[in-house]
Amino acid sequence: MSFQFEGNKEGKTNRPLVCVQGLGFVGLAMATVIANACDNDKILLYNVVGVDLPTNKNNIDIINKGELPFKTEDASFLDELRRAVLINKNFFTTSDMSFYSQADIVVVDVPLHIEKRSKNDYSKYSLSKKPFEQAIDSLGKKIKPECLVLIETTVPPGFCSKVVRPILEKNFESRNIVSSPIIAYSYERVMPGKEYLSSIRNYYRSFSGIDEKSTQKVKYFLESIINSKDYPLRREQETEACEFAKILENSYRAVNIAFIYEWTLLAENAGINLFSVIEGIKNRKTHNNIMEPGFGVGGYCLTKDSLLALWSADNFYNSVYGLPFSKRALEVNDKMPLHTIDLILQEMKVKNKKVAIMGISYRQDVGDTRFSPSELFYKELIKLKAICFVHDPYVEYWPECHEAPFIAFDHSLKDVDIIVFTVRHRCYSEATKEYLLEISKEGTLFVDAFNILDDEKISFLLKNNRNVIGVGKGHIKRIKETIKCQKY
Amino acid sequence: MSFQFEGNKEGKTNRPLVCVQGLGFVGLAMATVIANACDNDKILLYNVVGVDLPTNKNNIDIINKGELPFKTEDASFLDELRRAVLINKNFFTTSDMSFYSQADIVVVDVPLHIEKRSKNDYSKYSLSKKPFEQAIDSLGKKIKPECLVLIETTVPPGFCSKVVRPILEKNFESRNIVSSPIIAYSYERVMPGKEYLSSIRNYYRSFSGIDEKSTQKVKYFLESIINSKDYPLRREQETEACEFAKILENSYRAVNIAFIYEWTLLAENAGINLFSVIEGIKNRKTHNNIMEPGFGVGGYCLTKDSLLALWSADNFYNSVYGLPFSKRALEVNDKMPLHTIDLILQEMKVKNKKVAIMGISYRQDVGDTRFSPSELFYKELIKLKAICFVHDPYVEYWPECHEAPFIAFDHSLKDVDIIVFTVRHRCYSEATKEYLLEISKEGTLFVDAFNILDDEKISFLLKNNRNVIGVGKGHIKRIKETIKCQKY
Repeated sequence: MSFQFEGNKEGKTNRPLVCVQGLGFVGLAMATVIANACDNDKILLYNVVGVDLPTNKNNIDIINKGELPFKTEDASFLDELRRAVLINKNFFTTSDMSFYSQADIVVVDVPLHIEKRSKNDYSKYSLSKKPFEQAIDSLGKKIKPECLVLIETTVPPGFCSKVVRPILEKNFESRNIVSSPIIAYSYERVMPGKEYLSSIRNYYRSFSGIDEKSTQKVKYFLESIINSKDYPLRREQETEACEFAKILENSYRAVNIAFIYEWTLLAENAGINLFSVIEGIKNRKTHNNIMEPGFGVGGYCLTKDSLLALWSADNFYNSVYGLPFSKRALEVNDKMPLHTIDLILQEMKVKNKKVAIMGISYRQDVGDTRFSPSELFYKELIKLKAICFVHDPYVEYWPECHEAPFIAFDHSLKDVDIIVFTVRHRCYSEATKEYLLEISKEGTLFVDAFNILDDEKISFLLKNNRNVIGVGKGHIKRIKETIKCQKY
Repeated sequence: MSFQFEGNKEGKTNRPLVCVQGLGFVGLAMATVIANACDNDKILLYNVVGVDLPTNKNNIDIINKGELPFKTEDASFLDELRRAVLINKNFFTTSDMSFYSQADIVVVDVPLHIEKRSKNDYSKYSLSKKPFEQAIDSLGKKIKPECLVLIETTVPPGFCSKVVRPILEKNFESRNIVSSPIIAYSYERVMPGKEYLSSIRNYYRSFSGIDEKSTQKVKYFLESIINSKDYPLRREQETEACEFAKILENSYRAVNIAFIYEWTLLAENAGINLFSVIEGIKNRKTHNNIMEPGFGVGGYCLTKDSLLALWSADNFYNSVYGLPFSKRALEVNDKMPLHTIDLILQEMKVKNKKVAIMGISYRQDVGDTRFSPSELFYKELIKLKAICFVHDPYVEYWPECHEAPFIAFDHSLKDVDIIVFTVRHRCYSEATKEYLLEISKEGTLFVDAFNILDDEKISFLLKNNRNVIGVGKGHIKRIKETIKCQKY
């Protein structure tokens, strides 16, 4: 505890201390936002200590140099981190848990992993409760009785009242603290990408405390860091409701993606451009959340959050009905990339063919490869003895498939037989038809797995002796017939 | 063919003739809109003949008197019908199919029924193609070669090109007509209720012709009857795409209703107010189509349209994957009213209990009882030997359960044990808490199956010795506990 906050040196010793527990994609962004929060007179509001496990020492050192341990499209993130760490010096990171004893607020952003235990039946899962419980226990051992513990981790509904509360209460009891622990829940909706930090400050938040005191404390804290004027905070009556909301949001998206998948297959068979159909449907306000066909679903949330609610259904609420749509959606979505392989196999065998996978992150214009659908796609192609190369403008190293050779988005592609666009990164959709033609050899199969190529590009490539297929683009058959008619 | 159009008498003999085939909920509204369509100088554009089967003679007579054969909340509907039939005299209805031979345009609004053949597995269905095919055949026998045949009926994707076209072509061939039939598809999104006619004029439309000529003709016609300035028409490239869109729209809604059902059960178990959670989620534009918990799904479209696409998958496209989410949604939604019975049974047995079912139409502030979820609910309660009464401000006779005794929404309810609000009709949600108390006896169980009662009313009723339960309202348990604490 040798660190001396700059602010404190200047005598501002009563600046409240916020500890952020867990410095991942969410925790580091939250810590940065909190460290930069000011009052109306532009005076900094908080000192922030990020606390992570000693195993993450590497990241801790990077952050303390004012650098980001991951890439982001949001330039303001690095600026604000630097300002906090290097200029204002009101934010540093450590593995020393003794800081919890000084904290006025602890924001919990430690992960709570749930693993699928069967490839086909997702009712078999295992929740890694232990590390999360230990993290809460480490707080219980040290925090002041009045410290607000704000859980942001996506947890099974009921976790705050049925897991966090008993752990803290037990600790308070052994420490002879008579007051109740102050616990609240509020989930983030962080969107990595260009609006990374803004997605924390400028977005709606729901919150709830386990009692009135907790509720008032968390409301006051959130109001101080979030633009609640434009994005009013919303209080839920129970922490359960708040925990529930986060998972329901993501399950809603996951189900709608899985729903559109079955219509994608039908549209392809029927020779229909499903993207056009959906554009028309989206005119209706009541239907504008309908999803588009695509290559697959990735990321940390949409691929697993429903299982957390299923865990609660099984373990807390004895709910026999379960969540059949939500569970099935995860099963369908995880396998979705295999459909693109089916489409390719309808055109040619892939054995010994060179395939370039363009896009390995889980989302457009983002460098995060966690649970990316490209992973299964890559592994399946390797099984089929294809020779795979990968490209992603935001990724230099693919931890999940570390052996995958990278290829450039240029003339190097003249050497490959199949070019698959799997992520709608800007550089792919902005590539001109002439460029696509120039960097590919005659006979190349272009696979448009995420609506990267418009009809003009598709026609142009087809006319110039490239082949093109696409997910949800049944109408390409018709374009091919038209071109054939024109030729003969 | 004795009828003389008023306009024609005045010499406007070149006003084009539109026949509307099938004068049901859609056809009659369409016919009324077409008959009232004017050009910029407010001159009527069309003469309209409604053609229905001789079996519907009763309705034909009613319409020809300028009256509606069904109730509607849209007063303008009756006004416009009267204007067309009685004042402008450019619309009459008949069962005489010889008018087809004079038609410039035929709008097809005849139903195409698909029936479920198993209560549990909706992959077993039967499509009643015959009556629809006969209707098209009757056109083929008579229409002029240049007549535009505009299909509005919700049909399995592919029907225009694979069913309608061959029937008309075969007829043209026998009639030695060398030109191709002019066929187009455009689906309506008619919403019975206050905006009945407006939902035809002031809403987005997709359309497609089976060739360029058909496309241009239907575009010109739709522009003349629809407010396409504010609601631009959208052309799809194939009639298949257009047929597809209508069913996909309704399947999207059906799946999202079935999706929220599983979260409703979990929320009730977890003691959560799911309506509040969903209100919070709807703040997100990407999530504002999320559905609310409810009593069930009814109406002609949402309960069956997915099966039409499944029929195409099975019969036209040999699509083995099917539409598992969409199909399952219908199965789940149809059984949804049974959940309200489960909720009641958790409170009391219903045998010999008097139950008032408040709302038997399928939608709020609408009098249409077709496929209303109240039907299954009523029949199940009868099976359980409950004594059922029904009420609906928009329905005087319930054709699907003609024996059901009606009850008034007043002191008559003092005699019943259970009052179930199943439809969010305005008169129910606007009833004051004092009124609800006054018309019910002590111990009455109020069942709020569609978010008709707010928390204030619920608390008031509970405090005054009524019992209350509700679909998606797990938090009522908590309200009860609070009241209990206050009492003792």
